[in-house]
Amino acid sequence: MAKHKKDKFNDFGLGEKSSSEGFRALNKDGSFNIEKINIPFFERLSFFHSLVTMSWSKFFLLILVGYFIVNTFFALIYGFIGIENLTHTEGLSPFEQFMEAFFFSAQTVTTLGYGRVAPIGLPANIVAAIESMLGLLSFALATGLLYGRFSKPQSKIRYSNKAIIAPYKNINGFMFRVVNPQKNELLEVEVNISLSAKRDNSDLRDFYVLDLERSSVRFFPSMWTVVHPIDDSSPLFGLTEEDFFKKDFEFIAMLKAFDESSGQMVYSRSSYKPSEIAWGQKFIYVAKRENGKTLVDVSRINECEKAELN
Amino acid sequence: MAKHKKDKFNDFGLGEKSSSEGFRALNKDGSFNIEKINIPFFERLSFFHSLVTMSWSKFFLLILVGYFIVNTFFALIYGFIGIENLTHTEGLSPFEQFMEAFFFSAQTVTTLGYGRVAPIGLPANIVAAIESMLGLLSFALATGLLYGRFSKPQSKIRYSNKAIIAPYKNINGFMFRVVNPQKNELLEVEVNISLSAKRDNSDLRDFYVLDLERSSVRFFPSMWTVVHPIDDSSPLFGLTEEDFFKKDFEFIAMLKAFDESSGQMVYSRSSYKPSEIAWGQKFIYVAKRENGKTLVDVSRINECEKAELN
Amino acid sequence: MAKHKKDKFNDFGLGEKSSSEGFRALNKDGSFNIEKINIPFFERLSFFHSLVTMSWSKFFLLILVGYFIVNTFFALIYGFIGIENLTHTEGLSPFEQFMEAFFFSAQTVTTLGYGRVAPIGLPANIVAAIESMLGLLSFALATGLLYGRFSKPQSKIRYSNKAIIAPYKNINGFMFRVVNPQKNELLEVEVNISLSAKRDNSDLRDFYVLDLERSSVRFFPSMWTVVHPIDDSSPLFGLTEEDFFKKDFEFIAMLKAFDESSGQMVYSRSSYKPSEIAWGQKFIYVAKRENGKTLVDVSRINECEKAELN
Amino acid sequence: MAKHKKDKFNDFGLGEKSSSEGFRALNKDGSFNIEKINIPFFERLSFFHSLVTMSWSKFFLLILVGYFIVNTFFALIYGFIGIENLTHTEGLSPFEQFMEAFFFSAQTVTTLGYGRVAPIGLPANIVAAIESMLGLLSFALATGLLYGRFSKPQSKIRYSNKAIIAPYKNINGFMFRVVNPQKNELLEVEVNISLSAKRDNSDLRDFYVLDLERSSVRFFPSMWTVVHPIDDSSPLFGLTEEDFFKKDFEFIAMLKAFDESSGQMVYSRSSYKPSEIAWGQKFIYVAKRENGKTLVDVSRINECEKAELN
Repeated sequence: MAKHKKDKFNDFGLGEKSSSEGFRALNKDGSFNIEKINIPFFERLSFFHSLVTMSWSKFFLLILVGYFIVNTFFALIYGFIGIENLTHTEGLSPFEQFMEAFFFSAQTVTTLGYGRVAPIGLPANIVAAIESMLGLLSFALATGLLYGRFSKPQSKIRYSNKAIIAPYKNINGFMFRVVNPQKNELLEVEVNISLSAKRDNSDLRDFYVLDLERSSVRFFPSMWTVVHPIDDSSPLFGLTEEDFFKKDFEFIAMLKAFDESSGQMVYSRSSYKPSEIAWGQKFIYVAKRENGKTLVDVSRINECEKAELN
Repeated sequence: MAKHKKDKFNDFGLGEKSSSEGFRALNKDGSFNIEKINIPFFERLSFFHSLVTMSWSKFFLLILVGYFIVNTFFALIYGFIGIENLTHTEGLSPFEQFMEAFFFSAQTVTTLGYGRVAPIGLPANIVAAIESMLGLLSFALATGLLYGRFSKPQSKIRYSNKAIIAPYKNINGFMFRVVNPQKNELLEVEVNISLSAKRDNSDLRDFYVLDLERSSVRFFPSMWTVVHPIDDSSPLFGLTEEDFFKKDFEFIAMLKAFDESSGQMVYSRSSYKPSEIAWGQKFIYVAKRENGKTLVDVSRINECEKAELN
Repeated sequence: MAKHKKDKFNDFGLGEKSSSEGFRALNKDGSFNIEKINIPFFERLSFFHSLVTMSWSKFFLLILVGYFIVNTFFALIYGFIGIENLTHTEGLSPFEQFMEAFFFSAQTVTTLGYGRVAPIGLPANIVAAIESMLGLLSFALATGLLYGRFSKPQSKIRYSNKAIIAPYKNINGFMFRVVNPQKNELLEVEVNISLSAKRDNSDLRDFYVLDLERSSVRFFPSMWTVVHPIDDSSPLFGLTEEDFFKKDFEFIAMLKAFDESSGQMVYSRSSYKPSEIAWGQKFIYVAKRENGKTLVDVSRINECEKAELN
Repeated sequence: MAKHKKDKFNDFGLGEKSSSEGFRALNKDGSFNIEKINIPFFERLSFFHSLVTMSWSKFFLLILVGYFIVNTFFALIYGFIGIENLTHTEGLSPFEQFMEAFFFSAQTVTTLGYGRVAPIGLPANIVAAIESMLGLLSFALATGLLYGRFSKPQSKIRYSNKAIIAPYKNINGFMFRVVNPQKNELLEVEVNISLSAKRDNSDLRDFYVLDLERSSVRFFPSMWTVVHPIDDSSPLFGLTEEDFFKKDFEFIAMLKAFDESSGQMVYSRSSYKPSEIAWGQKFIYVAKRENGKTLVDVSRINECEKAELN
């Protein structure tokens, strides 16, 4: 098989020793099946990155909790200074005083400033002046975070659940389909497939780059069937489904495109293990013409039918 | 014609079966004549993308309506809690109470906070504190949206209405003109033309990449005439206007450039069908020199005059 | 000279007819000496682009004037509705009433909302609610504009005032110096020189691309002398200073780099006419070593000394 | 050694004269060991760039000090106009008046506007209207600055402290390790090594580009050992550790990658001097498999063990 070895390719920085039955370098969703441990603490902290990538529910919860804590903190400070430094707080119970201070703080940090309760005297005024400035900066930060969350390039490219071995011209091919289900246009799309295989009687893995019928398209308005022809220069040539399992194959697909709506490059990845490869199938054609327009049914990305292999 | 087939080119993910009389893959404005159907609901939602790309009138209407709904909603909550929890609301009719609550809400959500009407007591204060925070986040979002709307790269490149078949050197050429009517500079401009043609006696379409006299320019300060010389290596060689219709040609032009003002790549597309191609014309020269400056009249992009073909 | 013609190069979309004595395509500051006329009105409007690129003084003046106009406009509306709908305005003269309305508007549009003057009743409240929302949106827009102004990639690359013809190895070279006087690092810098020349006994101009001793550097921390060796493959070979004037040469330099601090590509351009070329000079070396550091005196970019040409 | 000289490479714009014992072009942290002097004043000012790159503590101190100065300035103006133009200031001592004016200013610049103290009359209202607008613009700027600070692409790529000379196949290699300790994925990583060497019996330095076993990887999820094989085409061939010192070598590494989380290119640099190169060592393998996942211990990037050189 050495003659097929065209490229040492990315071995994920792990040398070639990472083989074992059932090895998977890349998860189906494109994330790496690799975990970094013992990251120095200060380098793990990537404050902005975390806040931009966390889920929306977590993000809003964090803001709410932060808002509550900040107001509690400042309410305690106003109480410590002396609640009499806030107007309209005379004759209240301690709990009511805390509440007034809490809501005064909320009105200050948001720069709402109704003024029914207002600071009098130096200490309360100093705290309020600082709090309002911090409030503005915090919401300035929130503005950036919201923008960062919304504007980060997101490719929702979907891969067919299964790759297939299908007839292709007078030979066979390894194929899968990709679809861009969103309205944004992807341009200058490039795709490549790498194959990671267990070496016979060894703990090492070999890496191959698979030739594609076509590795790039200028436009990608709908669906694309990526094809690796299994000719005699292919590392898959002459292999059976059983061989795929024996060699513990992993097909790693990587897609790269220019997203016209965001003006940025987007990347997408997925991988197929032998159990996710269907032999003797072909993809069903999913476009039809209606009123001079071409309609593509993206929900049928996975639809196959039986096909005789060559 | 097989010998001209230089590239399988992008077949729009539709295989080669999408042929029929009058097929058009790309509309004149550069949008694809393709519609995706059955997009899973959650993937169709592209909140930020929609808000950034919708028309300005729709955008402002949405904000106004949203503002109205939010204030109505909070006014109802303040009413439900008890309007007596807002100052200066005693002795008002129910409608007046709702109005006071509505405008109190508006003053809260914008963090205006005149304070003439102010919350008293726990429930009203809690609602007001939450409302003001949500208000700030909403306007933070609006800030991001406005920035996203304004800063998104926009190339307004215009193509001549018609392509022409014009004399070129001692042969003929397929030509069209492009102009950048804006003040921003476009650099490193690349253009390519693809030809999609109906195959004889078949439902399939063939795709060709056309050679250009020049496929890239470093600067694009004014107007550019893109030329495909029809020499004997061209798939257009020896064809007549009638042949163009018979083969249901579609010339797909794609332009790519670096927009210096936004620092981003911009893409532009258009297509020409046989009915949009004028034979035996040539473009009129539209630049003149005045006071040491070169003036280019961009409004004359479409001007042609009769020309004898070779 | 035809054998030197390596590239048709960018003829600025003007064909080759734009020749005349003293022709200049590019100004010293890198702007194009070309004006587009008859731009359709709606395409000339590039609101955001104008606001981002105008001078700071103009920008702030515009904001101030806009602020004044908006407040005058809303003051008139409040007056029209009836000034009695604002608190604390009883018993004022018409001028005082206008002033109160004007400043109430200012307090509303900035969401300041002291509340000494506050709206009462439906009409004034409606106007105030709308004004405060518009105010927030306006300042949201200002936020985007300020960010856009500050973050737009700015390369302040400076070119030596004069290009020189200097001895280079055992021949001569056409040289100029570029410096990045800012602290940001420029990486992967590419430079190219094009030569535009009047054709003998003709109105046409020819375009040449000049070979460079080195056309790209990985780092550009200080100063770079760009060199075109005048060997026998150069279109400058054997020419005298007089020839340069006769052929009405224009040397167009274009530089492209990745700006590490902004994460964007920056472009820079300049041009040299024969009167800006010094013959028989060489650039003075401007770096020295001090305390293990290399010091580069960027203010000496133009310093030359006499040098015997080969 | 001339036959190894593959590339004139970047000589940092300093020609080849900058040699001397202990010369270092690039510091360990990737910054250039070069200082620009006599930068024209107005070009040194890069307001936004400075504010975005300064340390957080300096940034917040600057904001606090600015806030204090602005409020002091406006308090003096209100005092100058006449403190009686602010409500609730009658009967106060001069210090108390200044304090009220100071905090009134703070409430105005943040658009807090409690309204307990409010401006009356034309002059105070004019100043307050201007101040609140300036306040909004300042915080708009702060919003942009915070976003700029957080979103600027930051690659925290770490290089092994020492490079090593290790056995590689049946020869030796020059190697170092790089790790991306953060959670963001780096894609399409390219690396190159340049060698700067003192020329024998001369003040000049020579520059070489070193061939790498692999100069790019598609993914970089964990650690990568960069290898320059010392075969007979290498400028290091046959040299001893002593030669490295004598030639005053500097190995300059440059890494470039696409950061998927920010959608931008990131660059990283480092350099190794002979004293930072360990001979006869090899890097220890730091990955292990656990629960089907690969764990990479990034803290062990520097771990070596003795190895017999070929």
